[in-house]
This record gives sequence, structure tokens and C-alpha cells, in this order.
Amino acid sequence: MGVRRGRGRGVFITFEGIEGSGKTTQLAGVAKLLREEGYRVLETREPGGTPFAERIREMLLGSPADSPSAEPIAPECEASLILACRSQHVARVIEPALREGAVVLCDRFSDSTLAYQGYGRGLDLSVLRDLNRFATAGLTPDLTLLFDLPVPVGLGRRRRKETGQNRLDRESPRFHERVRRGFLDLAAQHPRRIRVLDGRPDPETIAMQVRSIVKKFLQRRQRPVTRHHP
Amino acid sequence: MGVRRGRGRGVFITFEGIEGSGKTTQLAGVAKLLREEGYRVLETREPGGTPFAERIREMLLGSPADSPSAEPIAPECEASLILACRSQHVARVIEPALREGAVVLCDRFSDSTLAYQGYGRGLDLSVLRDLNRFATAGLTPDLTLLFDLPVPVGLGRRRRKETGQNRLDRESPRFHERVRRGFLDLAAQHPRRIRVLDGRPDPETIAMQVRSIVKKFLQRRQRPVTRHHP
Repeated sequence: MGVRRGRGRGVFITFEGIEGSGKTTQLAGVAKLLREEGYRVLETREPGGTPFAERIREMLLGSPADSPSAEPIAPECEASLILACRSQHVARVIEPALREGAVVLCDRFSDSTLAYQGYGRGLDLSVLRDLNRFATAGLTPDLTLLFDLPVPVGLGRRRRKETGQNRLDRESPRFHERVRRGFLDLAAQHPRRIRVLDGRPDPETIAMQVRSIVKKFLQRRQRPVTRHHP
Repeated sequence: MGVRRGRGRGVFITFEGIEGSGKTTQLAGVAKLLREEGYRVLETREPGGTPFAERIREMLLGSPADSPSAEPIAPECEASLILACRSQHVARVIEPALREGAVVLCDRFSDSTLAYQGYGRGLDLSVLRDLNRFATAGLTPDLTLLFDLPVPVGLGRRRRKETGQNRLDRESPRFHERVRRGFLDLAAQHPRRIRVLDGRPDPETIAMQVRSIVKKFLQRRQRPVTRHHP
């Protein structure tokens, strides 16, 4: 079984949802599957994705108690740091991988900025869209999987994990409710790009749906290529 | 001699110029003078100005050789980090000080972003203006002192200093030429706000001019106030 690369540009798929929605688990599962099928796959995440961007991520998500000052971070500062990560990530990792024909699977991307900093923190959505465009040089996902579930379920899952909570996990349930509603609004605005999945069932059930959506999407994308190179 | 505060909003004065232009020395001199005259003065700088923003500054200006990856920083990432600093600085330091009536003296501000990231790195100026507006919530300096001098003179001064060069100092002379021309363009666009001073003479000569401009500016600003409270 040879390595199937898109002859030409790769495919960019993002995984979105509130904390505890299961997106990270699902991303790892579909990455493994696609690799087994011969796809060249890049698994990455935001904020972060490059060593420099991961350092920004640490500052961003680090506990305020860890910081020398326990200084509250202004919403515009938070948004700008996320965009700094995204700029670096797109320029150095995502775009080069897409140019080489990889399937790029990214845990959070521009939609998270609109949901968290826009709907969650109340920053202006149209300004955030401009900032996203600046940071990504216009790159948008080809496909977005949104894992939706009630906030108490998601937060409950996070609390049971031993990995520790980050600064966002400690926001109020109302904040996370606004974020959830934001994601659903975005899905309604982009029904072709964003597919909403129920995040409540067990991971295996969800994985089957993810697999089906992603495989159909990739087959449709690759059909013109395989036709020319049978 | 009582403490003269603006009864009401303070005054925001920025110091701009290429590396080695002498702005930092001049800022310290005029801060000392204004304090002696009873003004409440805040000296600050960008990128930085709060403990959190200073951490971002370190990442931004740190030698690439210091970073775990020696990873080149995308221009959009650099600009976003600077804006992250500015957001935090304005929200937590500059605006509160202005509300308390202080004279805020800031080493670099929005004009530096236009000059370095716009004219220097080639990012779109109108996008950078939007980003500045986002980061500052519309705050612009009341007065800007631009210290202008030929690039070789400025860079020569920096090289003689023992404090070490940062990432920007190591840019090509052509980069610094574009930045210098950028600052002069901005001064031509905002002739009332930006005063251009020759940065070549000895520091004492320049200090006399700075003192004269700043004192005249403050007197004019405070006249209505002192008239009401004789």
C-alpha cells in the first residue's frame, strides 16, 4: 500500500468544540486510521503547533498563579497571543504541509477564536474575523468537525481528568455556555464546512461517524486526481 | 510645591525613533525634570510595560539562538505579539494612569508598529492601523517626539553599547532605512502630533529642545484647568 498523497494541495480539517467535547481523542483516532490507509497526516493543535507557538501557549494557558504577577490578561491581549500562535503555525507548519499534499488535522483553529474571544469574551466578531484573516493569510479549513455537548457534561469530563485544568477551564459555566452557542451559530452560518456531531455518546460511536464523514470527504476531494492518475 | 496633576485626564507622550536615536535617554531626562516640577509621571516602554507584557517582550526580542528551536518568527506573529503587549499595557497601565491625571511617557508605541512591521517588514499599513485600534481601544498619543538620525549613526551607537543587541538590532541597514523613512512619513501625515527632532547633536542639546516642546505642550493643555482652579 503506497503513500497516498494528494497530488497537489492537501486537505485541512479542524476539530472544534468546548472543553471536554472529545475532539482531541477523535482527532487522534482518525489520524491513526488515515495513516493506516496510507495518507500522509499531520496532527497539530492550537494554540501552539510550533516550538515558539507552544511557548506562547504556555504563557496563555498557564495558571495566573504561575505568573510572576498573577496579572489578569486583557481580552485583546489574549486574542492577540492566540493570533500570534496562529500566524506562526500557519506560516511554518500548516501551509508547508498542505503544499506537500498532507491531510492536516488541527485541534482548534479560527472558529475557536470567534467562539471563545468573540461569543465568550464579547470582542467584536467582525474585528476577530479580520484578525483571523491577517493571521492565516486567508486560509480557512476545508472541513470542520464540531463536537457539541451540554456544558456540564464537558466540564465534568475535564474535571475528572488528571491532566489539570487550564485558565479557560476555570471560566464560569456561563462563559462556556456562550462559547457553545457561538460554535452552533458558526455552524449555522457555514453549514457546508462545519458538521455538527453529538459529543455525548461513547467515543467509539462518535469515532464511527467521524470516520464516515472524513472518508467521504477525502474520497470526493481525491476523485478528480485518481481519475487522471488511475 | 504641590503635586500638579491634571485635574481630569492626564497626558500621553510617546518617544519614537530608530535604534540608537537617543529616545530612551531623552525620556528619562524629561521624566526627571517633570517630577522635579511636581508632575505625576509614569515612565514606561513597549513592547512591555507590565510583568506579563515584559515576558512577551523577552520572547519577541530574545536572540533566536536562545530559543529552543532557533525558529524564525513570521512577520504576522511578531506584529501580533507586539499588539498583545500593547493591549495589556494600555488596559492595565496606561489608561489607569491617564485616568488618574498622570503624564505618561512611553518609549515606543503604535507608530513603531507602523514603522517596523509596516514600512520595515512590508505588512499592510491599513491592517496594522486596524490592529493598533483593536489593541489600544482607540487610544492615540497626545504628543509624539520623533528622534531622527541617519541609520549608520544610530546603529553605530548601539554597537558601542555593552547592553547587547536584540533581534531587531541585527536586521540589515536597509531594513532600518525603511523604518526611518516610515517614521518620517508618519510625521508628515501627523504634523500636529509628531514633532521631529534632530537626533545627532549631543544629548544635552537635544534635551533642551525636548524640555521646551514638552513644557509648552503641558502648559497649553493645563491652562483651562489652572484657570478654573487658580
